[in-house]
Amino acid sequence: MPKPPRLHVVLVRPRNPLNIGAAARAMSNFGFSSLRLVNPYAVAFREARSAVGAADVLANAIEYANLADAVADCSLVVGTTAVRHRELQQPLKTPVAAAMLIRKRLKSGDVALLFGSEKTGLSTDDLSHCQWLLRIPTTGNISMNLGQAVAVCLYELSREGKIANSSEKLAGVNSGQMERLTRLMFEVLAESGYVKPGSEVLSTQKIRRLLRRLQISPEDAEVLQGMMRQINWKIGGAGRNRTDA
Amino acid sequence: MPKPPRLHVVLVRPRNPLNIGAAARAMSNFGFSSLRLVNPYAVAFREARSAVGAADVLANAIEYANLADAVADCSLVVGTTAVRHRELQQPLKTPVAAAMLIRKRLKSGDVALLFGSEKTGLSTDDLSHCQWLLRIPTTGNISMNLGQAVAVCLYELSREGKIANSSEKLAGVNSGQMERLTRLMFEVLAESGYVKPGSEVLSTQKIRRLLRRLQISPEDAEVLQGMMRQINWKIGGAGRNRTDA
Repeated sequence: MPKPPRLHVVLVRPRNPLNIGAAARAMSNFGFSSLRLVNPYAVAFREARSAVGAADVLANAIEYANLADAVADCSLVVGTTAVRHRELQQPLKTPVAAAMLIRKRLKSGDVALLFGSEKTGLSTDDLSHCQWLLRIPTTGNISMNLGQAVAVCLYELSREGKIANSSEKLAGVNSGQMERLTRLMFEVLAESGYVKPGSEVLSTQKIRRLLRRLQISPEDAEVLQGMMRQINWKIGGAGRNRTDA
Repeated sequence: MPKPPRLHVVLVRPRNPLNIGAAARAMSNFGFSSLRLVNPYAVAFREARSAVGAADVLANAIEYANLADAVADCSLVVGTTAVRHRELQQPLKTPVAAAMLIRKRLKSGDVALLFGSEKTGLSTDDLSHCQWLLRIPTTGNISMNLGQAVAVCLYELSREGKIANSSEKLAGVNSGQMERLTRLMFEVLAESGYVKPGSEVLSTQKIRRLLRRLQISPEDAEVLQGMMRQINWKIGGAGRNRTDA
């Protein structure tokens, strides 16, 4: 039997055990149970596990070596940002708008909500995994504390838990599928000379962001993969021909 | 000249400097500046003052020996509670309802929002100073962290007014652009052998529908056209090579 869709709180490179504990506590408070940690500072994770309260959440927290793996089963990946030091490539949503979209998506698939490290937030590469971003409107130039940001987001998500449920079913593509499509498209573009040598990482991020903006259904993802494979085969053939010549 | 009405965040008997600092930081984040402390544990207050960020709020925080003095100039006093260990004598409101009433009152007079100590919350005596109480709806039996509770309340108080423009503005691709993209994609797929001979019309329609289902922005349409042209150029080369062979 398939598991019901879940929200996963994903902390990327957290360094402070108090913050991991605070995030877990906020999750307990608002009824969320799946905590995922990408490359946590090992000592922080160990210390957090012994934090008071939220023991269940912390005991069941799962550690990942990279972000792609942590969100592979999610059909929607949302990043949180304070939008300060970089230009954003993705749509930015308020917590209210974001909560509405996340609740809707949770009817059909898993959702990941990402929080970056205390110092630097989410990197450009982290953000390229996200369909769109959530920003808590704040004033002044102090960023929010990690645990407090988690609390506010989860509060907003649980605030209207009993909202009239929309009939629209939006089955999303999970991140694993999306990553395969990204890779295929990258190969085609690399073979065709679109990707400049040395810009492979930037191009992958660009493609990943582009595909996520397009809001592709699982069916269309299949179709697109088929198209890319065919083009890839043809271009590969072209490359071989040329080498032979 | 009378000062404009203000919201005062009142921490009653806080013991942990980290929580005082966290409360001050949340105040900075959401644009509130008046922090009052009733009987703070002296060491905690001193340590909090040296906390990173929110320096202004902490430097201007005022200490009171008792709650009555701390709220003497307020025309509305609101207590926060997790409602666990005692019967409540006062009306209980959700954060949304509370925020509405507080904002309304702030047009004419000062408002105090009280938070109790980490261990015991507000005492029955503290609560007797309050007109009514605010409760953040939570699940489970762990109470909220003080700093997180302050953040959620102040977020809710500052939230109003930014809701209207939360819906995403989607500048659409015009049909001419869409049709150019359709044609380019068709050419690529035809060249690659994806389009079966005789199915040209059906394939064009299929591609057109697919592209319209994807929510492409004008900028992304440009990017996709550039990609298609490059692939097309490469495949065209392949075709020529093959013909030459």
